[in-house]
Amino acid sequence: MTSLEDRIQQLEDREQIRELTTRYCHAVAAADAATIVGLFCEDGIFSSGGRTTQGKPALDKFYTRLAEQPPIPFIQNHVIDELAGDQARGRCSAEIRMVQDGESVTTAGWYDDHFRRVDGEWKFAERNFHVFHMVPLSQGWAG
Amino acid sequence: MTSLEDRIQQLEDREQIRELTTRYCHAVAAADAATIVGLFCEDGIFSSGGRTTQGKPALDKFYTRLAEQPPIPFIQNHVIDELAGDQARGRCSAEIRMVQDGESVTTAGWYDDHFRRVDGEWKFAERNFHVFHMVPLSQGWAG
Amino acid sequence: MTSLEDRIQQLEDREQIRELTTRYCHAVAAADAATIVGLFCEDGIFSSGGRTTQGKPALDKFYTRLAEQPPIPFIQNHVIDELAGDQARGRCSAEIRMVQDGESVTTAGWYDDHFRRVDGEWKFAERNFHVFHMVPLSQGWAG
Repeated sequence: MTSLEDRIQQLEDREQIRELTTRYCHAVAAADAATIVGLFCEDGIFSSGGRTTQGKPALDKFYTRLAEQPPIPFIQNHVIDELAGDQARGRCSAEIRMVQDGESVTTAGWYDDHFRRVDGEWKFAERNFHVFHMVPLSQGWAG
Repeated sequence: MTSLEDRIQQLEDREQIRELTTRYCHAVAAADAATIVGLFCEDGIFSSGGRTTQGKPALDKFYTRLAEQPPIPFIQNHVIDELAGDQARGRCSAEIRMVQDGESVTTAGWYDDHFRRVDGEWKFAERNFHVFHMVPLSQGWAG
Repeated sequence: MTSLEDRIQQLEDREQIRELTTRYCHAVAAADAATIVGLFCEDGIFSSGGRTTQGKPALDKFYTRLAEQPPIPFIQNHVIDELAGDQARGRCSAEIRMVQDGESVTTAGWYDDHFRRVDGEWKFAERNFHVFHMVPLSQGWAG
């Protein structure tokens, strides 16, 4: 039997984890690399398309470069599949508006996220981004 | 006066109902018909554009066919309008990326959902999808 | 030390505030100006692009005109940055599908929202909409 306090704590954890992914979006769109990196654990990982970036110095370099032409991510369909103590795992979908080589690019994909609570705050331990498609808007996602 | 436990239960119910709609999206994008059908009640209904599909065998057929060319749904603007015991009703908006006849199609619409708790788990009793527009990306939604 | 009841209240407040922004979307897409205006405080403000509309009569005029060609907003990335008593502040992102001069227009932006609880219900005290871009779909957001 879970105590009332534990149930409240779980709800608060879910709220904080969901907000972590949304804070990420706002910081990416605002080209605010320092805030983005602060959402990761010290040994945090971002991986996408076979490329892995680990640790705050590497993440800082990665997001600082990204911020030169900031994408605008829209994260949704958030689900928390596991939540146990200071560890959690979730998924969310993303639509991302980007500019590449002067062209409007639209991306659809989803994140497989691992979260860890550090000093009372939920952080990204690992973000794995899976791309459904990343295509010029003028071309579309068919074919 | 609602007890603290009842208030926690309501928050947990809302959380589970919201996650039900997001699990649906992930399963649709993953072309996982079995998981989608498992989110419905035995006598669950999906209806859209005057066409109604009811019951797990019919839903299984419907979503198996859909999975041949899986749409990518993004569900958002979730609101739970009623929640009473094991019944609930809500609305959410959807942007959906589809491919039809080799063409990129973009859809905007909203779901009118009825939820029922079965053996402690929230399920779709009825999903009614209302389309704002379903148009080729190259054409747009004007006119 | 926050009491259990206060923690539950905070979770409920967050839930209601989040739903306020989603109800707004449904009402905008449904061209339901009366419902939109009812989500604002008596002295509520909507501002965007240097133009400010304040008070229910002015908001009613503004949203009634908007409803002639209703945009379809998709709000996401919701975060509540401050919550203290009957005041709160949050941010959310928006993708909006519009029609302007017979053309499909796509908008990306974010809301800086101030909320106030009035007679037990959370309302918009102030919505400030910041546009990333508002462009014809046929043209895209690059350049």
